[in-house]
Amino acid sequence: MTFHSMWAELLPLGRSSASGGYRRFAWTGADADCRAWFEQQARGRGLAYETDRNGNQWAWLGDPAHGDAVVTGSHLDSVPDGGAFDGPLGVVSAFAALDELRHRGVRFTRPVGIVNFGDEEGARFGLACAGSRLTAGLLTVEQAHRLTDAQGITLPQAMEAAGHDPDALGPDPERLDRIGAFVELHVEQGRALDLSGDPVGIAGAIWPHGRWRFDFRGEANHAGTTRLADRRDPMLPYAETVLAARREAELAGAVATFGKIAVEPNGVNAIPSLVRGWLDSRAADQESLDAVVAGVRKAAREYADAHGVDVDVERESFTPVVAFDQALRDELARILGGGTDLTVPVLGTGAGHDAGILSGRVPTAMLFVRNPTGVSHSPAEFAAEDDCVAGVTALADALEGLACT
Amino acid sequence: MTFHSMWAELLPLGRSSASGGYRRFAWTGADADCRAWFEQQARGRGLAYETDRNGNQWAWLGDPAHGDAVVTGSHLDSVPDGGAFDGPLGVVSAFAALDELRHRGVRFTRPVGIVNFGDEEGARFGLACAGSRLTAGLLTVEQAHRLTDAQGITLPQAMEAAGHDPDALGPDPERLDRIGAFVELHVEQGRALDLSGDPVGIAGAIWPHGRWRFDFRGEANHAGTTRLADRRDPMLPYAETVLAARREAELAGAVATFGKIAVEPNGVNAIPSLVRGWLDSRAADQESLDAVVAGVRKAAREYADAHGVDVDVERESFTPVVAFDQALRDELARILGGGTDLTVPVLGTGAGHDAGILSGRVPTAMLFVRNPTGVSHSPAEFAAEDDCVAGVTALADALEGLACT
Repeated sequence: MTFHSMWAELLPLGRSSASGGYRRFAWTGADADCRAWFEQQARGRGLAYETDRNGNQWAWLGDPAHGDAVVTGSHLDSVPDGGAFDGPLGVVSAFAALDELRHRGVRFTRPVGIVNFGDEEGARFGLACAGSRLTAGLLTVEQAHRLTDAQGITLPQAMEAAGHDPDALGPDPERLDRIGAFVELHVEQGRALDLSGDPVGIAGAIWPHGRWRFDFRGEANHAGTTRLADRRDPMLPYAETVLAARREAELAGAVATFGKIAVEPNGVNAIPSLVRGWLDSRAADQESLDAVVAGVRKAAREYADAHGVDVDVERESFTPVVAFDQALRDELARILGGGTDLTVPVLGTGAGHDAGILSGRVPTAMLFVRNPTGVSHSPAEFAAEDDCVAGVTALADALEGLACT
Repeated sequence: MTFHSMWAELLPLGRSSASGGYRRFAWTGADADCRAWFEQQARGRGLAYETDRNGNQWAWLGDPAHGDAVVTGSHLDSVPDGGAFDGPLGVVSAFAALDELRHRGVRFTRPVGIVNFGDEEGARFGLACAGSRLTAGLLTVEQAHRLTDAQGITLPQAMEAAGHDPDALGPDPERLDRIGAFVELHVEQGRALDLSGDPVGIAGAIWPHGRWRFDFRGEANHAGTTRLADRRDPMLPYAETVLAARREAELAGAVATFGKIAVEPNGVNAIPSLVRGWLDSRAADQESLDAVVAGVRKAAREYADAHGVDVDVERESFTPVVAFDQALRDELARILGGGTDLTVPVLGTGAGHDAGILSGRVPTAMLFVRNPTGVSHSPAEFAAEDDCVAGVTALADALEGLACT
């Protein structure tokens, strides 16, 4: 199958006709459709297919038990109403790059694997990269059992309902020990390549980032009959905190976003009892991120006090700065430069990835494909087909340089 | 059945064990339970029971075809996680007052009716007083067909699923023409009676009030990788508009509330494409209300422009000031004063009621029962049993004075 035909097969899976975006949430029917597609691609190429104990899918050329394997891939799940490229581009490009290498007639000297990590976006259970975190031992089985979706279904219950044995969950060090290099290709989620004029770049580091839940608790009351002076309305300090986050991010040269909210009782004529808002913040370094979050926490507490509202802040996830393996980065730059003076741009990124999770255990690198608008996590996310093909070629070159003679 | 035992029967219906509040939304299972309870109370007293074309329930002592009927009652549905008293107190007190009159051995000279109006709170379909509005011709059949709940189910579909013929929907002038007086008893939703030290008061007027939907449309994007300068984040002008509403209400001596919000895609790591907030605002007079809403609209537009966000404002409902029938009010004051110098307090209210809807067609009055905290639309809503009993006595006195010799 060509890149184009694989892409066309994936396009309709889990797509909302209302928004045009994707709703491929972990362990749902849409996710199962994507996973079936992955298995079919693996088996159709005569690759050894397996699902690991944490539900990640693997396709192998050569025996991974030999060790020092070169692995590529990404994820197939999506954020709510996400775009077509974030995740799938890395998986489709992996299969296409393998096809390209077979077409070139290379001889493989190391096992090569393609992976689809489960639940990368965390859209359903609130924790990003659950599949790779479990495998790397960065999410314990106990923590996984406490992850619940909006309907109160836990991650293990959802996996079991999808036909996966939840008792198998756990760290998988033997598997990681067999991997000598992991290269994840991903659509860029900013405009750096568009500004530099390059179709493909190499990741330098992932910014430190985290998610904080702000619970503002006031008192539910009638919106028509309760005097302003008698109110304890949590929507007011929430609103002030949203604006404070923007100010703090601007000061620190960072980003901060309140993109998710839950209100109780959420009635037009009821003052809320609870406004729960989630802060996502990222910065180029730890110090800047700490400054942003400390500033937003302080503002939330002061505004809540002024309105007689209680506020509770909980850090739901955190990932420190990830600098990718310098030797692997240099090797990729050499391979992609083709021995010429051509330099491949090296980019930082504010987005988390499975590659970031694995980087503590395995030499890891990332390739980015140009995104002409920078838009991501939206139905408008886009990469030109020529650039996608350039990404496949770059990934094939990388795999050939690393795993072939 | 005593007031106490009727109250105890209703208490568990539609109550959320999670919040302790009520979720008696129109045409749901909890609503059906409440309606079955009403029918049982009517039939158990030998009253003629009927459901009208718009799903409102009626219980009659005497033949309403004689005309000049005296009707009392209220509603049994609730806001999300509402209290036990808002609505049910008026229905239970109606049955208890009728029992009291029978106990007194009075002779009825006019037909007496007890009513449970459907869908008073508008929690499911977004429009308050749908049942009485339909009957009064203030909600057309075409408009009713366009009302949808969060699942996209229309009001007629929901009524049909609950066993009610939606083709029957429509104005019901003959029914209203037979009513000579409507008296609705309701728990007070403020603290005026608590401050004056009276268990029962009479309504003077309902403040003008309305609901406006603010749609802020920006651009969904990745929360980690999109530079602040490249964002069109609708959460920011929403937050500024929430704060503007509070300022405008303070200036005008009015109330304004953003208690309901819907965000798309509502993901932690996604800048929203849409933030939809609902403004509820009320004031003692039309001029003040107009000033508040004009101020909030202007602020929303300016803040949205500053963030590159589109804003669209739609008035979803509006009720002008309702002054209750002066002659009926005076008669109630005379009856409840017992011919003495005792004066019963007369209160304004910011809450809408079916009595307000009917007041354009039928001489209408309201009685309020003391609420010691003023809290309403919350599980903490409360009235003391002694005050509830005083309300039943006052309602019985009113019915005796109006409909008996």
